[in-house]
Amino acid sequence: MRQSTLFGRTLREAPSDATTPGTQLMLRAAIARPLAAGLYTWLPLGFRVARKVEQIIRDEQDRIGAQEIRIPVITPAEYWKETGRWDSLEPVTFRTRDHGGHEYMIGYTHEELVMHHARNEINSYRQLPVMVYHFQEKGRDEQRPRFGVMRGREFLMKDAYSFDIDEAAARRSYNKMFVAYLRTFARMGLKAIPMRAETGPIGGDLSHEFIVLAETGESAVYCDSDVLNLPVPGEEIDYDADLNPIIKQWTSVYAATEDVHDAARFDREVPADKKVHTRGIEVGQIFYFGTKYSDSMKAMVAGADGAEVAVHGGSYGVGVSRLVGAIIEACHDDAGIKWPEAVAPFKAAILNLKQGAEDTDAACEQLYRELNAKGVEVLYDDTDQRAGAKFAAADLIGIPWQILVGPKGLAEGKLELKRRSDGTRENLSPAEVVARLTS
Amino acid sequence: MRQSTLFGRTLREAPSDATTPGTQLMLRAAIARPLAAGLYTWLPLGFRVARKVEQIIRDEQDRIGAQEIRIPVITPAEYWKETGRWDSLEPVTFRTRDHGGHEYMIGYTHEELVMHHARNEINSYRQLPVMVYHFQEKGRDEQRPRFGVMRGREFLMKDAYSFDIDEAAARRSYNKMFVAYLRTFARMGLKAIPMRAETGPIGGDLSHEFIVLAETGESAVYCDSDVLNLPVPGEEIDYDADLNPIIKQWTSVYAATEDVHDAARFDREVPADKKVHTRGIEVGQIFYFGTKYSDSMKAMVAGADGAEVAVHGGSYGVGVSRLVGAIIEACHDDAGIKWPEAVAPFKAAILNLKQGAEDTDAACEQLYRELNAKGVEVLYDDTDQRAGAKFAAADLIGIPWQILVGPKGLAEGKLELKRRSDGTRENLSPAEVVARLTS
Repeated sequence: MRQSTLFGRTLREAPSDATTPGTQLMLRAAIARPLAAGLYTWLPLGFRVARKVEQIIRDEQDRIGAQEIRIPVITPAEYWKETGRWDSLEPVTFRTRDHGGHEYMIGYTHEELVMHHARNEINSYRQLPVMVYHFQEKGRDEQRPRFGVMRGREFLMKDAYSFDIDEAAARRSYNKMFVAYLRTFARMGLKAIPMRAETGPIGGDLSHEFIVLAETGESAVYCDSDVLNLPVPGEEIDYDADLNPIIKQWTSVYAATEDVHDAARFDREVPADKKVHTRGIEVGQIFYFGTKYSDSMKAMVAGADGAEVAVHGGSYGVGVSRLVGAIIEACHDDAGIKWPEAVAPFKAAILNLKQGAEDTDAACEQLYRELNAKGVEVLYDDTDQRAGAKFAAADLIGIPWQILVGPKGLAEGKLELKRRSDGTRENLSPAEVVARLTS
Repeated sequence: MRQSTLFGRTLREAPSDATTPGTQLMLRAAIARPLAAGLYTWLPLGFRVARKVEQIIRDEQDRIGAQEIRIPVITPAEYWKETGRWDSLEPVTFRTRDHGGHEYMIGYTHEELVMHHARNEINSYRQLPVMVYHFQEKGRDEQRPRFGVMRGREFLMKDAYSFDIDEAAARRSYNKMFVAYLRTFARMGLKAIPMRAETGPIGGDLSHEFIVLAETGESAVYCDSDVLNLPVPGEEIDYDADLNPIIKQWTSVYAATEDVHDAARFDREVPADKKVHTRGIEVGQIFYFGTKYSDSMKAMVAGADGAEVAVHGGSYGVGVSRLVGAIIEACHDDAGIKWPEAVAPFKAAILNLKQGAEDTDAACEQLYRELNAKGVEVLYDDTDQRAGAKFAAADLIGIPWQILVGPKGLAEGKLELKRRSDGTRENLSPAEVVARLTS
């Protein structure tokens, strides 16, 4: 992609209402733009990140056998009324009516809707276990939308739902999702710590939040530093095996948000030199809620003995929009964003340090063609900005690899390859640069 | 995927309110399920088709240099008020208010929103041409939602927008999109004919609809049969070249929907043996609307001479949800759907004709593992239904290749490979089946 026609201008200064470093960078780097409080449009750079985040989540959901569906944004009131959440969610939801007077809610979450489908599609224990998920916009009328895309009023979420014949089976589904989430966040270059959580409006008695540590996060968190170094299961993980040892390993080390923090236990269990008290951003939450929704919605299946039982359910959310914001909060310096390679909008940026000069133009064009042909996603800064402005924009946008093409280096057949994450630089021939980025 | 745990049951009979063959098949084959009139959830089989449709559209948008973004579903009233469409669209839109009393519309389309971003991000002719697109749910409060997902009240749409410095440049963008659409529909296995169209609520004076011919379509169409055999540009197409000859070739042959049909011209220009009068389904529409939105929204850029001019715009929609329905209408027989391979939910179906018998179970499992390992998407009917029911379900669901695994054939080391599109069958060894499906 040529930067001269990239839709979205980088900004020198962040608007004054951007309160966290991540929100400021998100706006300055043209990741997203507000339309109103808490309503953001993803510009091309941000959308590319969101897509990669989404694809990593999808991969790991597919790996545990979850099936992708899509439920509408506009959800009829009748389903919410079956569980009583039509009224209880009123203060935080957007409502609408059609011209015939029927009422709808912009989906705040989708338990009722998916439970409705489950009661129609599943009638026997033989069809279980089933997990389904979808990526869909959610609407939540936050009184105080803030932190940019991290607490918006519309945001993209992956929500998954499990259906099982009994509690033991449901806990196996819960465990699969727990491990899938560990892998999902790790693949994005994040350290996300599962923490026991309150269940809030979803309900149930078992829940974990996954928290990315960041100084600017909205929740205070307390943990044992050991939890930061636990191994995340690799892709050879066998999801049909007993996952309890992994769950136990992750949940027996102290880690809690302020909501459920137990100061006495923290003092008792965690040695002083391992006490971590910082802030974090919730990027996912999982719930086991038993028969809470299936009882009221009559989602029954025939068990092995023929008797009808209510299905046991769980729900599992990851905020795609929120993750993009969280990654920026967790991965940046004063100059800009430092995207982890797995979610970066492009892998490499070419900076033409003397736009319009025959030799740098030719070298950049050739490199651009060659990297594209080899499948390397590359952003070519072909604008007529000066070198200094290009350096600043590249650091701000935060592409992992910068290729600096200037007349001085070219005279010696060299380009400079700069790694954004640690600032290291190397002088390499064009062929070496290509080899490095395609190896 | 194992069919025993596939979320979504096939139905022997379609609900009585399903009025077209395609809608009946969509429900019977568990492609989608209604939540209310015109609001559908995609079940896993249908979602897989929708994703492939989406990916083909995305590929072709990317190929012409369009940049993907995402604008929210919930759109603030203020932008619509700038152009006067807040009032004019009232009868067909869903409205909501937040708890602070601010008004929003579920996006009916997104011209105003994207124009708002364009006026902020683009300030010079040097940044043009720009095309952006997004996939996003649209809400339209149709008085009479019908034809299943084809005229729903919420649906997924790809809408693209072009920005150019003048009319000549805007027509080049229009032409690119025209050709991209020809390619997009052809890749899905559809014959979609561009027809001159009225511009309706989008406005402007140049527009084409792309119509898939199907007896059950909602519009009557008239065309010269020559238009059915015109060549669609291949992937070697050079979008920077002059595309006018292609446009001319496609638009000089008579083809019109009833709205703009000119009976006298049809009689004069089309020989009797080439007159086609049938029905069709609109799957896409493109518009050039000049400065209609940029004038009222003050989307100005500096031209080469420094003078400020309003950008010339176009918008370009494809209905993803609608396409899934249109493909079913265009590709089915009495027994069920016949998915074109490019959009089929799976490439192959394994039918275990004697579930529970050691030899067929073992052969199916091995084939299932092998095909999965080689990246062939396969649906394994491992249910305990009898052979007859499995045949019927497979024809209904419409996976392009069926692999029938029965004890009789197995005794001779053979499976039967059936092609759904034409019903041809061959007896092959398992290795030959794998080779055929991976070649």
